[in-house]
Amino acid sequence: MRVVITGGTGFLGRRLARSLLDRGRLVDHEGKERAVETLLLFDKGPLAATPPDRRIETREGDIADSAALARLITPETDAVFHLAAVVSGEAEADTDLGYRVNLDGTRLLLEACRAAGNRPRVVFASSLAVYGGELPATVGEEVPLSPQSSYGTQKAIGELLVNDYSRKGYIDGRALRLPTVVVRPGRPNRAASTFASSIVREPLAGREAICPVKPETVMALSSPRRVVSALLRAHDLPASAFGANRSLQLPGFSVAVGEIAEAVRRAGGEEAYRRILWQPDPAIERIVSSWPQQLSAPRAAALGFAADGGIDEAIAAFIEDDLEAQKALS
Amino acid sequence: MRVVITGGTGFLGRRLARSLLDRGRLVDHEGKERAVETLLLFDKGPLAATPPDRRIETREGDIADSAALARLITPETDAVFHLAAVVSGEAEADTDLGYRVNLDGTRLLLEACRAAGNRPRVVFASSLAVYGGELPATVGEEVPLSPQSSYGTQKAIGELLVNDYSRKGYIDGRALRLPTVVVRPGRPNRAASTFASSIVREPLAGREAICPVKPETVMALSSPRRVVSALLRAHDLPASAFGANRSLQLPGFSVAVGEIAEAVRRAGGEEAYRRILWQPDPAIERIVSSWPQQLSAPRAAALGFAADGGIDEAIAAFIEDDLEAQKALS
Repeated sequence: MRVVITGGTGFLGRRLARSLLDRGRLVDHEGKERAVETLLLFDKGPLAATPPDRRIETREGDIADSAALARLITPETDAVFHLAAVVSGEAEADTDLGYRVNLDGTRLLLEACRAAGNRPRVVFASSLAVYGGELPATVGEEVPLSPQSSYGTQKAIGELLVNDYSRKGYIDGRALRLPTVVVRPGRPNRAASTFASSIVREPLAGREAICPVKPETVMALSSPRRVVSALLRAHDLPASAFGANRSLQLPGFSVAVGEIAEAVRRAGGEEAYRRILWQPDPAIERIVSSWPQQLSAPRAAALGFAADGGIDEAIAAFIEDDLEAQKALS
Repeated sequence: MRVVITGGTGFLGRRLARSLLDRGRLVDHEGKERAVETLLLFDKGPLAATPPDRRIETREGDIADSAALARLITPETDAVFHLAAVVSGEAEADTDLGYRVNLDGTRLLLEACRAAGNRPRVVFASSLAVYGGELPATVGEEVPLSPQSSYGTQKAIGELLVNDYSRKGYIDGRALRLPTVVVRPGRPNRAASTFASSIVREPLAGREAICPVKPETVMALSSPRRVVSALLRAHDLPASAFGANRSLQLPGFSVAVGEIAEAVRRAGGEEAYRRILWQPDPAIERIVSSWPQQLSAPRAAALGFAADGGIDEAIAAFIEDDLEAQKALS
């Protein structure tokens, strides 16, 4: 199989690539397992390092450049994982960039898939940011989308496009509403949610981190392991598993930010806990508090998607997968 | 005030123009009534005839042409009624045209409004086609959008854009989910719903019309009079009336298609009734049956929007407003 990951050298892209190559197979549209022969990692430059593997090819390019996409997606492309995006904080601050990458990029990618003519399977990373406004205590697919950020608007539009292009038979698409991914390794990014990883990652690696929201703020989270496994599961399910609705709310676990700090204390001791600096930022609080706090995902559960056991499990996974590399970052 | 209507020489655009000029005033962003000095009717060519009035200017152009929109929308533009669209049947059959006009056109129009820099008031005509899939018996804003047509997808995306651009302060937008408008005068168009007008209009004007759905099919309708008055009301309400959600479900009345035929019999006699030819078309039935049958619109009701009394009232309005001109059409 020939597989494309957009945003393929980003944190999730690289992790998905590694997991996909370890496993070595994907299910094709006939329901048969087939070997992954080529894995194309598409990203904007400069490209980050990728796992050494002869199946990997990297491509530097602009997701809103239709010529680049026409070279990337061909009739031989079996599967596309579309992760490339401008994150929430940046899409809010730079409206044009957010619309160009998150809306035009997604639409042009879907057009390239349509032009390929072989109905490739497309897995699109959507987000809880599609919800907003006055939300019920528990949020799932029964709640109308009412994004309160440009990022959420663009993700909601992406879902609509994935659904329409699937219905018309141009692609076989699936859009997953991902919970906030915690713990992200590496550097903070411009997502409004980036602190939720920073307040774990930095203190455990020996550095201070600012928490811009109140301890009682509740968030719905998922570990990178669970998200990567969900992306692969979503790919492998037959189209019939989704029915008329290609958008799927993934499950996540809910935790108050103060509880994340307590879990840091359990994992890294009093010293780590004291490295969390509480400095409220109303702009971040406004965005984060517009997101769902508790998720309801019965359809995903019935399809075999599961949430982490809780924040301690997510932190243990971070320590196992990433902490050594994180400490090595200057 | 300087007012723009896109799709301004179409059926609804002309009727809105006439009503706006009769009234002569709109409420500005400070809540004050001001005279309409210039009414720009923008439409693709060839332009239909417009009411003779010195305040009217017509402009022929492409709604997806940003240069034309930059000339149309200026810092002097106070209000934009965005009605231009490719209708449902055509957007389904010609995917590229539908996306170009209904998505690109709407986005470019909103960009032109943003570039004008004066936060114009924008009233966007959305549609019941944004709903779909497994719908409850009564449908309102609490139901997640799940369009089952490209047209519905494009209208849902337009709503998301109107909301995001309003939230960011680029426009002061309102998106109205219009019921199916009945009775439309003139020629049948390529909307999947066009028959609902044809089966009234043609028999009353002495011609046969095909009904492609079963008599028991229930539709949610609104007369042109109510829709025009709703567009004007939506413009004049202050932004605070909408809160965080700029999308508003309008009320409509529900009627089985067989009941529409009975109302034609009441209005035009047995002879008119027999001019309705029942010839089911599964493609039309599939689209129409994916739309809501009963509407719930408590928010609109609280804001003073009302539905027609029923199909007889809508037919009486057609006879009063349009039947003579209709008979004159060859």
